[in-house]
Amino acid sequence: MNHDELDATLDSFGDALASATRVTPGNALRPEDIAVDGVAPSDEVAAYALTLGDDSLILAQRLSHWISRGPELEEDIALGNIALDVLGHARSFLTYAGLAMGKTEDDLAYWREEEEFTSLWMVEQPNGHFGVTIVRQLILSIYQHLLYSKLAESADETLAAIAAKAVKEVDYHRDHSIMWTIRLGLGTEESAEKMRHALEILWPYVDEMFLDEEIHRTLPEVAVLPSSLREDWDKEISAVLADAGLEIPATGQAMAHGRRGEHSEHLGYILAEMQVLARKHPGATW
Amino acid sequence: MNHDELDATLDSFGDALASATRVTPGNALRPEDIAVDGVAPSDEVAAYALTLGDDSLILAQRLSHWISRGPELEEDIALGNIALDVLGHARSFLTYAGLAMGKTEDDLAYWREEEEFTSLWMVEQPNGHFGVTIVRQLILSIYQHLLYSKLAESADETLAAIAAKAVKEVDYHRDHSIMWTIRLGLGTEESAEKMRHALEILWPYVDEMFLDEEIHRTLPEVAVLPSSLREDWDKEISAVLADAGLEIPATGQAMAHGRRGEHSEHLGYILAEMQVLARKHPGATW
Repeated sequence: MNHDELDATLDSFGDALASATRVTPGNALRPEDIAVDGVAPSDEVAAYALTLGDDSLILAQRLSHWISRGPELEEDIALGNIALDVLGHARSFLTYAGLAMGKTEDDLAYWREEEEFTSLWMVEQPNGHFGVTIVRQLILSIYQHLLYSKLAESADETLAAIAAKAVKEVDYHRDHSIMWTIRLGLGTEESAEKMRHALEILWPYVDEMFLDEEIHRTLPEVAVLPSSLREDWDKEISAVLADAGLEIPATGQAMAHGRRGEHSEHLGYILAEMQVLARKHPGATW
Repeated sequence: MNHDELDATLDSFGDALASATRVTPGNALRPEDIAVDGVAPSDEVAAYALTLGDDSLILAQRLSHWISRGPELEEDIALGNIALDVLGHARSFLTYAGLAMGKTEDDLAYWREEEEFTSLWMVEQPNGHFGVTIVRQLILSIYQHLLYSKLAESADETLAAIAAKAVKEVDYHRDHSIMWTIRLGLGTEESAEKMRHALEILWPYVDEMFLDEEIHRTLPEVAVLPSSLREDWDKEISAVLADAGLEIPATGQAMAHGRRGEHSEHLGYILAEMQVLARKHPGATW
């Protein structure tokens, strides 16, 4: 192989890998496109994009831990694919946010402190047993499906394009978690009990997902108001739980304010693991 | 959602996820198809399929650890995709092998002891720094590309179909590791030094990859004779290393016999992590 051939290989590599191993709908923006061609958002839009990116980034960290640790090889691959989809969404949102700040996606992922992360408490909740991961994914994929469907109509064209791509992937994530919720809810007495347990430990973090913050109110044409998603979300998850023979648990709600940088005790550990390598060798590839 | 709609969702789910998030070339066999429609192989063919499945399974475990721990989000996703591809190959080979034994892919992955695994020592070598992972992947993806190209002509139609699908994915894995090898080899003095170090610690496990065992000799029309791959492999990797300003190191060769169930000290730890969940709750989903 000579150097000219090699340069051609290198140049084509990014596209080749993307189109070969992942879904890349026609007009969807990839993080690379956003970084090169994107128009920098306003500070407010960047702050909003950051909240979406942080949710996806932390959820992806959680989900990726199932790869090679799950109960079935098939399910390892399914959760692994979901993790990589969600990590892809995080990359797009963070890349876009970073354009306003002179930072890359990697700067934002690896070099912020815990109180600078704006993710919801729901995404940082531990994987627990398999049922906890499935219920967390059910809650979040129904939420993200509603959110990205609306965001695809945003006045901000970049956010709209990212959401239009993401919603197609989240549609499958939702199918996946609905299928498992029903299979486990209607399965054995033990599996149903585990699902009830999962609902109880995760439900306290539901209300936070629908809190309207200042950042949403200042961007009425751009951002999706979280409270506007609640009615449809309630309807949809209630129907799934009913089909699964499960009920919404009667639990209180946590005082969770992830959007303001206040987090549960879990986020610090997630960040430590995620950031250690990049921080140990700043600027290097390892 | 009523139950009829739901059943339709469940029925279509496997196909939907496969076609939506992964490459599924036209006539390729999925593990599910092999399990349902496959003709059980002879004991000898099953034993051969097991060697290929074990190599992929253990390599996928190693690669998946980079997800959420890498130096760049983009690279996390690339290595994650490669891990999931390779895990997919493992599933197909193990499913096929299991047909002769009355076992599922999960039985074979989670319920065998260390001395029953037939994987090469190369795949169980630690990830080390990023350069070690890249050199290991360079060595193995060039090897697997040659191997699966020949296996696609096997007299065993199932092995041929699995290999025909796998070789297209391995082609991208090879491009990926070639790109990184050259980028790092020609990068800074530090990156070149790390690549030399990686070559030195991995090279002792190269000869084992090309050892012909009894199982290969008894299946002349079905199995690919490992020694038949050596000349092309030497030529190809030498060209890449030359382009990267690197050389084949002058190291001795380990007395490695993974095909016979003799393993380095690393495999036990890999299996412990991979098998703990399935063994803790046999028969359950968690």
